[in-house]
Amino acid sequence: MLNLAKMKSIYLDYAATTPTHELVVAEMQPYHACVFGNPSSLHHFGRDGKRALDLARDQLAALLNADPEEIVFTGSGTEADNFALKGVAYAQAERGRHIITSKIEHHAILESAAFLESQGWRVTYLNVDTNGVVDLDELQKALTPETVLVSIMHANNEIGTIQPVEKIAEIIRQFNLRQRSEKNSGVAASPVYFHTDAVQTAGILGVDVKKMRVDLLSVSAHKFYGPKGVGALYINKGTRISSFMHGGGQERGRRASTENVAGIAGFGKAAEIAQKERKGWAEHAAKLRDKLTEGILKTIPDSILNGHPTERLPGNVNVSIKYVEGEAMLLNLDMQGIACSTGSACSSGSLEPSHILLAIGRTHADAHSSLRFSLGRHTTEEDIDFVLEVLPKIVSRLRAMSPLYKK
Amino acid sequence: MLNLAKMKSIYLDYAATTPTHELVVAEMQPYHACVFGNPSSLHHFGRDGKRALDLARDQLAALLNADPEEIVFTGSGTEADNFALKGVAYAQAERGRHIITSKIEHHAILESAAFLESQGWRVTYLNVDTNGVVDLDELQKALTPETVLVSIMHANNEIGTIQPVEKIAEIIRQFNLRQRSEKNSGVAASPVYFHTDAVQTAGILGVDVKKMRVDLLSVSAHKFYGPKGVGALYINKGTRISSFMHGGGQERGRRASTENVAGIAGFGKAAEIAQKERKGWAEHAAKLRDKLTEGILKTIPDSILNGHPTERLPGNVNVSIKYVEGEAMLLNLDMQGIACSTGSACSSGSLEPSHILLAIGRTHADAHSSLRFSLGRHTTEEDIDFVLEVLPKIVSRLRAMSPLYKK
Repeated sequence: MLNLAKMKSIYLDYAATTPTHELVVAEMQPYHACVFGNPSSLHHFGRDGKRALDLARDQLAALLNADPEEIVFTGSGTEADNFALKGVAYAQAERGRHIITSKIEHHAILESAAFLESQGWRVTYLNVDTNGVVDLDELQKALTPETVLVSIMHANNEIGTIQPVEKIAEIIRQFNLRQRSEKNSGVAASPVYFHTDAVQTAGILGVDVKKMRVDLLSVSAHKFYGPKGVGALYINKGTRISSFMHGGGQERGRRASTENVAGIAGFGKAAEIAQKERKGWAEHAAKLRDKLTEGILKTIPDSILNGHPTERLPGNVNVSIKYVEGEAMLLNLDMQGIACSTGSACSSGSLEPSHILLAIGRTHADAHSSLRFSLGRHTTEEDIDFVLEVLPKIVSRLRAMSPLYKK
Repeated sequence: MLNLAKMKSIYLDYAATTPTHELVVAEMQPYHACVFGNPSSLHHFGRDGKRALDLARDQLAALLNADPEEIVFTGSGTEADNFALKGVAYAQAERGRHIITSKIEHHAILESAAFLESQGWRVTYLNVDTNGVVDLDELQKALTPETVLVSIMHANNEIGTIQPVEKIAEIIRQFNLRQRSEKNSGVAASPVYFHTDAVQTAGILGVDVKKMRVDLLSVSAHKFYGPKGVGALYINKGTRISSFMHGGGQERGRRASTENVAGIAGFGKAAEIAQKERKGWAEHAAKLRDKLTEGILKTIPDSILNGHPTERLPGNVNVSIKYVEGEAMLLNLDMQGIACSTGSACSSGSLEPSHILLAIGRTHADAHSSLRFSLGRHTTEEDIDFVLEVLPKIVSRLRAMSPLYKK
């Protein structure tokens, strides 16, 4: 008998998106119908909108340890990634047409890179080890005088692996120093810039652009309890970059479009909240993450963890449960009210196995058997207990039906 | 004595942005913290988000007389314009690299065109007559076998002139027919596509993509009582266009980024409301527009109307008041609580005179003396009376201080 009143609804897909924080929703409210001016307008309605942007810029800059004028608001993390790659590529086309990235980047990076390849750029895709860590030797060797940009994500959206961003920055810095001393031609050529996609980490981990020594960094609001439809690109002062969104002179001429004032105000508030709360959120998530991971690996035979055992996002559990289709598990979990994912939400319509799981050496079969649970501030111990009660049964049932599984 | 309680606040800058409709604000509310799933997610949270997108797509399609699958949501009207120009240019680069547009387009078009010029495309900028109407003979002559796109706006954002879009479409259609019969080579070459920037008209005038016979059409939500940060590009079925925003497979692979569900839900609601209300809004605005225009021209000597005397946006009044700086009038009006503009909000930081006013043959001095009032659904007769009481006094005072003005 179906009892809807007793139906649970457990959200374990925080890496896909998060519920907007109640204080963020409240912050956005006045900017729709009341303080609605276009920030580019010179009158008092416009100035009020401008003030909201200024405050949000300060709040986000504080979260990232950046200067406010280094923040350019965009419409999404994807736009920030497009802007970083294409903006640097076009601005530096005369200097060189080589970009380095990795095989496990988000599609926003990989598809932007593929577009640039179609326009005559050369792109090197670095390999990763079985934990999903970028090969630093390969990076060393890939850098050439034609290289203009290295783009390596801060943490992976599917398997949660955190990259050694500071080591990467140091390799690039050493390369730039050597290039400068070798040339010494009097012409100040632009260095190789370092971009990191921090969509999965900003507001979650400590993201400090100065400590990380990045030139460009992408952020998305809705991944840490801010609204959808707003992101930002941090651009270190002096970085040569072209516009991606052409038009009016907004964002000091760097990104055209009437600013999404309500969204940006909410983004700023989310940054302010995250700055105070993120450590507590991370500890909470990591504790439950470890419980869920251990529980799955212990109770479900032939299950393996994907991603780094320790250097991983606090809320990320990614497992391959052999001999079962990830999508079948997902749909069965969904019928029990549990929401998780089989990979990145952005490619969930696709039948292709995850490029990330293949890059860390998983077989096609294991890649198709993956499940990602991503935990957040509302996740409770009871949620995890329920998954650990339900998932083994689902797996047993599906395996019993599978011709591949012989017990 | 400053009496703030008696201070008026009159918004006459609806062309820059509009206050979000109260029903739109209400529509958006649940999608922040409650129905917050990522529409790409396969679980029930995702499906709920997807349903909101589907509804909004139906609502906007109904407003434009399009099919829902022909609507691609974007982050702004500017993004829709970038997408149309660059998307067609890159998809059709092999066929030809010539684009036709006009000298009075929005910066989102002109700057996108300039970017394409920097990448090897050729762009023809059509002249307009003194009313701001595109020269159709020039369009005829500009079309070549290398032309892939004509982009002419539906109505101008500064001077309000409405273009003869159906005549333009017919010229392009005749050209395409001639091309097809001349070639007849068996290879189905893409026709010249017609794009119109309808950011100032969708939700305001009747915008019917079938009647207008356009292949692509840009829309922005915040220009007709929807939220900022969301726009759309109508793409006629079969139109060959590349992605502008690269990444995940959202919007059937045509526009990457997690969808701004709340914003899109609000956009849909705004479209639904506009479909019912826009005629009443337009009649209301046109009546007050005519009163304001006549009042200014009658009471202020040496003032002239910019833009077409009859074929203009219902809410648009654009005048040049000779011997006075537009910005000085704007700031003086603002001190009286009246918000208007000196041109497009997107270029309000610039010291350059409006490219639009120069294109219709105004002198630099007259272009610098322009004021734009744009009226909307909340504008009252009392608002107009107050402007007509205040503006002549401001002009007299400024002229009295001006060395240029001899009376």
